[in-house]
Parts: sequence; structure tokens; C-alpha cells
Amino acid sequence: MSEDLLHVSIAELESLLRRIFEANGVSAKNAAILAANCAACERDGAHSHGIFRMQGYVASLRSGWVDGRAVPEIEAAGSSFLRVDARNGFAQPALAAAMPSLLAAVEATGVAVLAMRGSHHFSALWPDLEPLADRGLVSLTTVAGQACVVPPGGRVPVFGTNPFAFATPVAGSPPLVFDFATSTMSNGDTRIAAREGRKVPHGTGIDRDGHPTSDPNAILDGGALLPFGGHKGLAMTLMVELLAAALTGGSFSSDVDYSTHPGAETPRTGQLLIAIDPTRGATRVYADRARDLIDAVRRSGASRLPADRRYAARARAQAEGIPIARAQFEQLAALAG
Amino acid sequence: MSEDLLHVSIAELESLLRRIFEANGVSAKNAAILAANCAACERDGAHSHGIFRMQGYVASLRSGWVDGRAVPEIEAAGSSFLRVDARNGFAQPALAAAMPSLLAAVEATGVAVLAMRGSHHFSALWPDLEPLADRGLVSLTTVAGQACVVPPGGRVPVFGTNPFAFATPVAGSPPLVFDFATSTMSNGDTRIAAREGRKVPHGTGIDRDGHPTSDPNAILDGGALLPFGGHKGLAMTLMVELLAAALTGGSFSSDVDYSTHPGAETPRTGQLLIAIDPTRGATRVYADRARDLIDAVRRSGASRLPADRRYAARARAQAEGIPIARAQFEQLAALAG
Repeated sequence: MSEDLLHVSIAELESLLRRIFEANGVSAKNAAILAANCAACERDGAHSHGIFRMQGYVASLRSGWVDGRAVPEIEAAGSSFLRVDARNGFAQPALAAAMPSLLAAVEATGVAVLAMRGSHHFSALWPDLEPLADRGLVSLTTVAGQACVVPPGGRVPVFGTNPFAFATPVAGSPPLVFDFATSTMSNGDTRIAAREGRKVPHGTGIDRDGHPTSDPNAILDGGALLPFGGHKGLAMTLMVELLAAALTGGSFSSDVDYSTHPGAETPRTGQLLIAIDPTRGATRVYADRARDLIDAVRRSGASRLPADRRYAARARAQAEGIPIARAQFEQLAALAG
Repeated sequence: MSEDLLHVSIAELESLLRRIFEANGVSAKNAAILAANCAACERDGAHSHGIFRMQGYVASLRSGWVDGRAVPEIEAAGSSFLRVDARNGFAQPALAAAMPSLLAAVEATGVAVLAMRGSHHFSALWPDLEPLADRGLVSLTTVAGQACVVPPGGRVPVFGTNPFAFATPVAGSPPLVFDFATSTMSNGDTRIAAREGRKVPHGTGIDRDGHPTSDPNAILDGGALLPFGGHKGLAMTLMVELLAAALTGGSFSSDVDYSTHPGAETPRTGQLLIAIDPTRGATRVYADRARDLIDAVRRSGASRLPADRRYAARARAQAEGIPIARAQFEQLAALAG
């Protein structure tokens, strides 16, 4: 199969993705932001948020469910608190628009909260935080999704896969960024397991009768996923729903309903982001201490740390180009019209 | 055994605990705060942080490792960022001293960070956050501990049990507060299992050779605990160590060493707390939305929610007094001298 593999430069992939977005009703400004985001996921080997997602982006746009030309509204509700209305657009352009205000608020006060509503987050969270860590900030963010997760003991899905992400600068290294679903598994990975006929670990979810199952089809067909880590994971996913939806004014995961827009795939909810200037701590050498801690974790013999795989994939892609199957690249080119 | 059970009023228990602290070198102001904290844990059935801890408090004070008369220093490092030096005292008096500044900062800007160092946190975290939720704030806090947790694949303990807590107001109900160790199990529960000759779930920790074990003695004797929830839990415990130690200027869990003070039990590290005014969100009816979400979780059939057990125990204690074994109460009375 290797003869069918192309190696595409990051600039070339971004350019193609930008044309796809623009051909499907996205403003030039928003298209550039979304293309860079999606290309970065593909570059870093985060395939479930890379070009695999383009069909979903395009179908959601064509259905009229999401507004590719949305112009976000940003409003200060205090010197450290920004409200952002994504106005039914994707989250990334709204975040980009709010970024100067966010950075100014952190510089002025030491910390800032960004509370976004009316937003479609259809990507990973780590690309939202990595630029903040590059600027020396510690940050965390959460986003609500689409109800497919039940509390332990429950039967009716209440939560999305509700990811939680955190990023920190590390002296002498790229930022350490983690980003995980607070469910046992992402919805996408459950679908991939079902398609490939694989079992999932027992207790990943429940079937339609509420029984724990290892059958991804039973989870998808009237069942549900469970939070990771039992009651601790339930606490985390509940916190995400409170922060990303209740606090921002976004929809709860269980209120998302795009059945009126066939083809749509993106939940319109909310996102919360907190950014902190860690140099305000007593020692003022935060990034050095972060490096010392990471070094200690590696010396302990830890098998791998968050983001290790992404940075390895990124380095390969920067040296050799991003590996993409020719057939998939041709499908992308067709989407660009 | 029921004839040996006393039912002690909360005021009576607080008064006794205050006398114990004062008899062991704690200032009157600090003693009142620590006594209220410890009595609240006992009242709520959080026994591992209740009167069970008094021997450890007293031994740590008598060893000279912790300063019961410490007067914390509070310094603003920005209008939303407070630095607190607990000056080798317990965390709770330092938090109490910083509370007016913290509340003023949230009111002025929408969010505030409190970064405490040089502090001994020898209790649960939920008592720190509940008063913030009572005032309508959303908050989270983390504290580093004493190295007893290895990263998956690692051999050398790097992390404490590094708890993470979150609190939110809920319209018409007491606050929802969760507080959990980011390790599979707390150190105290591991010791209790060992003492009682019980096994722990396989994979709770590793033995001295790095092999997963269900023997609590093997974990305690040269082995280590693991983070809860695999790599996601590792990410959480790493985040706690970064926030509570690297950012605050407190010691890392792996740098805690009280071997020079025989009897001492309290790790001197740091604590981070973030408080947010959730009414700055777009809908301004945050607590109502939190109630709606909690209601949906209960309707889903969830077996229990964080804090349910504590509130049930509290209601019983308020009606009937706090149940304490007579022998234990007499031991306490002896500590008061």
C-alpha cells in the first residue's frame, strides 16, 4: 500500500482544507482558522480530529445547522471575565477573535476566564491551549458535547464525552498538553470499533437494558458510554457540563438536537477556558519547575507522557510531510469542488 | 457496642478540639479554625479527616515540624492573583486569612487565583470550597502531598495522592462539592486495609518490584499507589502537582521530607484555588441551570451524586449529635490535657 501514500506539506494541506471550507459557505477568515486547526490535528497524528472530520464539517455546513460566516461577539463581564457568543459558528474562529482580549486580561490581572456559548467544537481541545502555553500561560478548557454518556447506575444519557484539557509551558521543551474525554472512550473510537467488528473493554458502556457491555454496537444502538474511572470520572464529566454549559450559557449536552438539519454532526454547546499567568507565583520560575517535575516523572520510568506521541508525529511530518492515502487526498480534493 | 456510643453536639466537639489544639502550641485564632474544620469532617462522616486525624495533628505540632502559631502573609500579584505564604502553618488558617481578599478580587474582576505555599493541608478539601459555593461562587482547588504514587510504568514515587476538588452552588439545594484523590486510593485507606488484613483491587498499586498487586502491605512496603483511571488519571495528578506545587512555589510531593522531625505526619507543600463568579455568564442564572443538570442526572437513575453521603450524615448529626465511641472521646479528652 505504501505506493498509495502521499506526503503532503503542511502548507499544501492547509491550503486544500481552506478551499474546502470556502467552497462550503465559510468566510475566508474563518476558513483559514479551521483549516490550520484541522491540518495541525492530521500533522500530529490525531487522526480522529484530522481530515477524517472534513466530511462532517462539510455536511454540517451544507445542512445549514452551523454558520460558517458567523462573526463572534465578545463582551467583558469584568476585567478577568470574557463572554463570547460564537453566534452558531465554529468555536475556533470565536476563540481566535477573543484571544487578544484574553491575553490582555491575563496580563492585567493574572488570570482570565473565557465563557463561550453558541459554539460548535468539532475538533480536539489541545490546539486551543498549545498557543497559550507557547506564551508562557497555564490553561485549561472544557467543552460539552452531545448526550451519549450515562452516570454510573443511570439509564438515560445526560453528558457528552465532555473532554477536559490542560496545557503548561515547560522550560526547554514544547508545552505539555493533555486532552482527554471524560467518558471511557470517545464516540468516534466507539464507532470505529463497531465498524471494525472489535470488542471494547467490558464496562466501557451499557446496552439498552442498562447492562455493562463490551459490544460497541450495543453501546451505540440504544445504550450509552460510561464516565472513565467510576465515580471520580462522573465528578469530572459533571464538572465539565457545569463549566462548559451551565456557566457559559451554552446548551447542555442533553439539549442538543440537530434532527431538523439532516447531515449535521456538530453539537452546539459551550466552552470554558481559564488562562493563568504562572509567573505570578512566589518563585516566578514556573516553567523551570515544570521541567524539573517532568524530568522526575520520566526518571521514574513512566512509559509515556501526554503529548509525546503528538510531538513525535509532528516532527516526522515536518521532516517528511504529512502521510495521507492518495484515495483520501483525492476525496478531499473533490470536496474543494 | 451501641451503649459505648456517645452523641456529641457539634459545638461541644469543636470546643474540645479547640482545647486540644491550644494545649499543643496552636494560637487561639488558628485553633478555632482547625477545630471547626476537623469537627465538620467528623460531623459529615468523613472519618478519615475527622477526629482520627487529631493524633497526627498533635504529633506533628509536638515534633516542631509545623508552626501552630503561624501568621500567614498575603500578597497581591495582580488584581486577580493572590500569593499566600502559610509560613509553615496549616493551610486552613491561611485560607481563612486570605478569604476577604479572595472574595474582593472575584467581585472586582470575575475570577481569582489563590496560590499558597509553605502550607500543611492535613484535612479534606471540600470544607475549603463549600463556603465559596454558599456565596454563589464556583471553585476548584488542588493540593500536593507526599510522594507515594508512581506514574504508570514508573517505579519511583513522584506524586502525592494529590486531591482535586470542585464546588458549585445549586439552586434550592446545598452546594454540590466533590473531592477525590487522583490516586486509585488514599494513603489512609491503604493503611486501613493493611491493618484489617483486607486485599485492595488488583492494580491499586505496585509492589517494590514494580508488579501490580492487590496486597496493601506490598504497596506500603517499598511499593506505591497508581493514579486512578490509567493515563487520564496520570494527567490529572500531574496537573495537580503543577498547579499546587510548581505554580504556587510550594514543595513538590517528592521533596517533602520530615524525617528530621520524628512524629511529624503532615506534608508541607502548596495549594491552588480558583474561584469564579458564575453569574457573569451569559444567562446569569447559573445556579438554576446547575439545579436543572443535577435533576437530570438524578432522573437518569444515577445511584448517587458527590456529597450525598456527607449531607445525609450531616443531617443525622444535626438532629442527634455526632456519634463518637466513648473510648475515642476519652482519648481526645486526654489530648486536651
